[in-house]
Amino acid sequence: MSVNTFGRVLRFTTWGESHGPALGAVLDGCPPGIALTEAMIQPFMDARAPGQSKFTTQRREPDAVKILSGVFEGRTTGTPVSLMIENVDQRSKDYSEVAKAYRPGHADYAYDAKYGLRDYRGGGRSSARETAARVAAGAVARLILPGVKITAYVSQIGRDEIDRSAMDFSQIGQNPFFCPDAAAATRWEALVDGARKAGSSLGAVVECVAENVPAGWGAPVYGKLDADLAGAMMGINAVKGVEIGAGFGAAMLSGEENADPMRAGADGPQFEANNAGGIAGGISTGQPVIVRVAFKPTSSILSAVDTIGRDGENTQISTKGRHDPCVGIRGTPVVEAMMALVLADHMMLHRAQCG
Amino acid sequence: MSVNTFGRVLRFTTWGESHGPALGAVLDGCPPGIALTEAMIQPFMDARAPGQSKFTTQRREPDAVKILSGVFEGRTTGTPVSLMIENVDQRSKDYSEVAKAYRPGHADYAYDAKYGLRDYRGGGRSSARETAARVAAGAVARLILPGVKITAYVSQIGRDEIDRSAMDFSQIGQNPFFCPDAAAATRWEALVDGARKAGSSLGAVVECVAENVPAGWGAPVYGKLDADLAGAMMGINAVKGVEIGAGFGAAMLSGEENADPMRAGADGPQFEANNAGGIAGGISTGQPVIVRVAFKPTSSILSAVDTIGRDGENTQISTKGRHDPCVGIRGTPVVEAMMALVLADHMMLHRAQCG
Amino acid sequence: MSVNTFGRVLRFTTWGESHGPALGAVLDGCPPGIALTEAMIQPFMDARAPGQSKFTTQRREPDAVKILSGVFEGRTTGTPVSLMIENVDQRSKDYSEVAKAYRPGHADYAYDAKYGLRDYRGGGRSSARETAARVAAGAVARLILPGVKITAYVSQIGRDEIDRSAMDFSQIGQNPFFCPDAAAATRWEALVDGARKAGSSLGAVVECVAENVPAGWGAPVYGKLDADLAGAMMGINAVKGVEIGAGFGAAMLSGEENADPMRAGADGPQFEANNAGGIAGGISTGQPVIVRVAFKPTSSILSAVDTIGRDGENTQISTKGRHDPCVGIRGTPVVEAMMALVLADHMMLHRAQCG
Amino acid sequence: MSVNTFGRVLRFTTWGESHGPALGAVLDGCPPGIALTEAMIQPFMDARAPGQSKFTTQRREPDAVKILSGVFEGRTTGTPVSLMIENVDQRSKDYSEVAKAYRPGHADYAYDAKYGLRDYRGGGRSSARETAARVAAGAVARLILPGVKITAYVSQIGRDEIDRSAMDFSQIGQNPFFCPDAAAATRWEALVDGARKAGSSLGAVVECVAENVPAGWGAPVYGKLDADLAGAMMGINAVKGVEIGAGFGAAMLSGEENADPMRAGADGPQFEANNAGGIAGGISTGQPVIVRVAFKPTSSILSAVDTIGRDGENTQISTKGRHDPCVGIRGTPVVEAMMALVLADHMMLHRAQCG
Repeated sequence: MSVNTFGRVLRFTTWGESHGPALGAVLDGCPPGIALTEAMIQPFMDARAPGQSKFTTQRREPDAVKILSGVFEGRTTGTPVSLMIENVDQRSKDYSEVAKAYRPGHADYAYDAKYGLRDYRGGGRSSARETAARVAAGAVARLILPGVKITAYVSQIGRDEIDRSAMDFSQIGQNPFFCPDAAAATRWEALVDGARKAGSSLGAVVECVAENVPAGWGAPVYGKLDADLAGAMMGINAVKGVEIGAGFGAAMLSGEENADPMRAGADGPQFEANNAGGIAGGISTGQPVIVRVAFKPTSSILSAVDTIGRDGENTQISTKGRHDPCVGIRGTPVVEAMMALVLADHMMLHRAQCG
Repeated sequence: MSVNTFGRVLRFTTWGESHGPALGAVLDGCPPGIALTEAMIQPFMDARAPGQSKFTTQRREPDAVKILSGVFEGRTTGTPVSLMIENVDQRSKDYSEVAKAYRPGHADYAYDAKYGLRDYRGGGRSSARETAARVAAGAVARLILPGVKITAYVSQIGRDEIDRSAMDFSQIGQNPFFCPDAAAATRWEALVDGARKAGSSLGAVVECVAENVPAGWGAPVYGKLDADLAGAMMGINAVKGVEIGAGFGAAMLSGEENADPMRAGADGPQFEANNAGGIAGGISTGQPVIVRVAFKPTSSILSAVDTIGRDGENTQISTKGRHDPCVGIRGTPVVEAMMALVLADHMMLHRAQCG
Repeated sequence: MSVNTFGRVLRFTTWGESHGPALGAVLDGCPPGIALTEAMIQPFMDARAPGQSKFTTQRREPDAVKILSGVFEGRTTGTPVSLMIENVDQRSKDYSEVAKAYRPGHADYAYDAKYGLRDYRGGGRSSARETAARVAAGAVARLILPGVKITAYVSQIGRDEIDRSAMDFSQIGQNPFFCPDAAAATRWEALVDGARKAGSSLGAVVECVAENVPAGWGAPVYGKLDADLAGAMMGINAVKGVEIGAGFGAAMLSGEENADPMRAGADGPQFEANNAGGIAGGISTGQPVIVRVAFKPTSSILSAVDTIGRDGENTQISTKGRHDPCVGIRGTPVVEAMMALVLADHMMLHRAQCG
Repeated sequence: MSVNTFGRVLRFTTWGESHGPALGAVLDGCPPGIALTEAMIQPFMDARAPGQSKFTTQRREPDAVKILSGVFEGRTTGTPVSLMIENVDQRSKDYSEVAKAYRPGHADYAYDAKYGLRDYRGGGRSSARETAARVAAGAVARLILPGVKITAYVSQIGRDEIDRSAMDFSQIGQNPFFCPDAAAATRWEALVDGARKAGSSLGAVVECVAENVPAGWGAPVYGKLDADLAGAMMGINAVKGVEIGAGFGAAMLSGEENADPMRAGADGPQFEANNAGGIAGGISTGQPVIVRVAFKPTSSILSAVDTIGRDGENTQISTKGRHDPCVGIRGTPVVEAMMALVLADHMMLHRAQCG
């Protein structure tokens, strides 16, 4: 029930605010005996870290992960793995404006309505900075899933989609957008830079593919693999939509068009299509698991927007300072992390019930 | 962790198979003192029940709910409310074909891969018949939410969308499609009947609006109201996509376009748009909560589809018998039920923490 | 969080009241492929059933279990196993006295204080009748634990203890007290009959031994095997104390006396004592797991006791009707059931984490 | 399901090992707006801290708590409260003996059997040092329970009990044993010092009373207040027995003797006895909640004990170094902390369901 905890058998709890001294994750239920060092986590942190290019926020955080427990002589012991990331660049700025008025589209008003008070510095707990802890936990989850290959990429920024015939996963690490289409990446430089300079922001779509997931993971009926993935992805900051496989497109297909015919193969069934996104009845089928995630444009824009103050009076607010012009970009490693965490959880849950 | 249990504080557990003697839900955590009779649940059961029109499956089930516990002298006692629905029309048919071969798009293969065996009669536990139990539980959840008004409707069948300027909620109960646009409902008669006669099937989109939800419900960061809704909706049979508010459309907007400006109002803030779908930072804002859900066309089609048998050999299968040509239609009351269950759960969770 | 649900990976939810139409358990997470019929559950129900001798309540309930879901062609499918027991002998009596005044020692006052209302017929949900559902679930849990042998017995009634040098497990089924000491069983006939005739009641101690539990089950630090057993046992109606191994006696020992020395054995370590009761650090050691449980005398006595009414005024109440003179006796199969449920749960939890 | 997490609505997760860099607790679900500073937690840490007298282990740890999240401008925000305690005095000693052989009565063998490896330095995660994190969390829980007064004390060391007629709670803080009987405290100095000098150890009984708990907390049937307390207490290191109210003594009483008669009082019912320990049917009655907890003598003794090595061969081991001669003493603040955590959890759970 713990709302800052995610997972069923492999569970992690995150804590921390944007401008507190640190944030972290406690990963519980991790199998023993897995080789784990801070260096094995760090590359995933670096992928998500701010300040890596001019297309992301200029806050500079090393996001160095410390392992505080659960590892002995380089291996997990089966006890909780506590991961901590110290905040370094909490720029001392004047938050009086944000303290007094609500930024539309942010969590400001909702937090005040719920809790009666809020940590307004950098968004507090509602900041996407919290996702650093998820990425750290996700890096460990990957180690629990040897053989499973998880790849996320940006397929669309604003209205500009990639050319799927030009997709090349080897391109993803070659540009600052996690873009598998080199030509699109080039176009996006101008697009995102334009938004940044204008103090505006852009939405994006991130896709994630998990290969080599065996058939049989997922737990009907309220722990369905797709349901857990949907909850995991919708819980990422700024996400407004989630699709599995053909998604909303499936609503426009006929049953014949949507079918994924099966043929006998050497290593189990071969599927002739994957509209299902690798999941049927909430259980993996052995096909690649495919998720699409819609990120809204961040609400942090320079234009003044009508709002109200804590005093209930009309006012306007514009968000200055260091922000991502397109939060979907840095959301990509977070999508990968959540995919890894959900899959590792279900691998273990399956093992509990089915041996 | 119980995978046939849903919810955080208000929890329900469902059980039962398509062709077993009965199915049911145990709703736990219900506040005491709420007036509850079987007659108060039945209308919601009837809305979902099969055999109501020629546009849904012809299986005839009265879906009469029995309250077996948790109610005394017409009021809930705070103990588990056990709801049972007996199966009546489990037509004795020959399941040998389904027993031997996997229907592509169904859970057949995945269940066998997971469990090593399956109840193949009518899909067993993977049948949408299980959603009757959710609707029963949802009917009770509505009673926990006095004042909240929940309305779901079909906004699209196949490629045919409603005209939003013609939307009229009073129409929803006037046609067999839960359609708020009378003209669209007329068009859909031919559309769905055509699919039915052809032994084909159609996808659909269902939208759900919850009005009068106060600001402050939802639990960051892994019990966000939108994340829980996404998981709840994606867990409904045949669902492949979920959007909150502007959803995937938000990915194409600029920050300026996506903003929901606020103005001072007599009873709290007034919002000038609702791209957020009533949720910010995972917490309700007081605006209507809006969810869109994509249903795939059912895989039960008359056309023969390539598949494999349990023996691993190539074969073909076509699904005869009684099936919904468009499962999204009868999914509408299920979407409403899940909305009610998630909201009631979060109302109580909010009360636990914030008094 | 569901308070009528027990367990971590293998979970069961019970529902029902003493005088409702039925009660039941939904067992979720059960491994697939286990042979299960109603006849395999019934003997455990019969052991707990009322009306078996003059030493227990004269309410006559067949306690016939119906399996409503989760089993197909004689084997579990991995979906929820719904078990229902219909109430048959809800004698129509006058409950007006219990409705108006609180029976001291019963849950009457506490339920009213919590919920504002209560089902006073036979104690409603607080009746020990609910334990029938646990015994049904426990019977299934035993099937998940092939090889583990669970034996509970009454070791003390009132102040009369068994002679441990005369213990013989084969005697347990030979007398109406689950007593392993034939001489004590003979003495208890007069003791319990005397209490019954006097309208009084007696406390008891039940011990439970689980043999062949492998080393390694249990989950530090808040899912310790002993902690889960303590919670499980203390949750049985009328239980006021739980000990593991030497229990309170260990508080009087020196470290030297309390040590369980180990010696090398052919099949793993041999322990030269078992003060630990088979659990160290919350994890099983491979020794027999030993629990002792104290049952209070039931509060249902014929003597008039001072109490207050719902109106807050002083009055007196005496409990007539059909009651157990010593609830610990029929608690014995419940202790066994909870032991089986906790062990099966931990077997599966261990498998989830450690493979 | 997270086994290093405790609680239902108010949940805390602990992490850390005896000889790691730090340990901590993440307390989730804390109500917002509660005044909280590190200085408000520290006195409870100091009460449990080692090295306070010659009667406890000589390891010297300041046990200074840092609040890393969840507090803003001196008040809780409703987000997770992360509490960290750095380990300071991890004496660099030679652990080769413990690495190679199992200390009987410790978790050494069980951890190896479960996980295949273990952090043997100071017992790793199985060390009672973990309870520092519980005490920190418990200090926050107390603040959620204004008005409730929680007092634990040692009532027995070895075979030497306090004189209940001489009990005076004001004495508890006046001696190093948390003893409410000054004369007993004087006797215990010699008793405990003798055990310490002999390299032996002593068991103890700790009692805990919670006053001003309102009627109505507790959640039948698997979240009973007494069941949750039993699980909480049995999960404390070295605990082997738990009693509520009259406990095992109740097994020897008749129903008449065990009754707690009620009389009308100005502020609700007055009870004329408290054999129930303040809980009936799993729900608080408004009387003081009373728990008794048995601590075994620590297994860390100087005498050589027969054991086996990791290699399976016979050997002997004696535990040198810094250990508590009577772990029950420092267990007292831990018992108080767990009482506070269980009560605060149930206060919030009650509020969720019953408003």
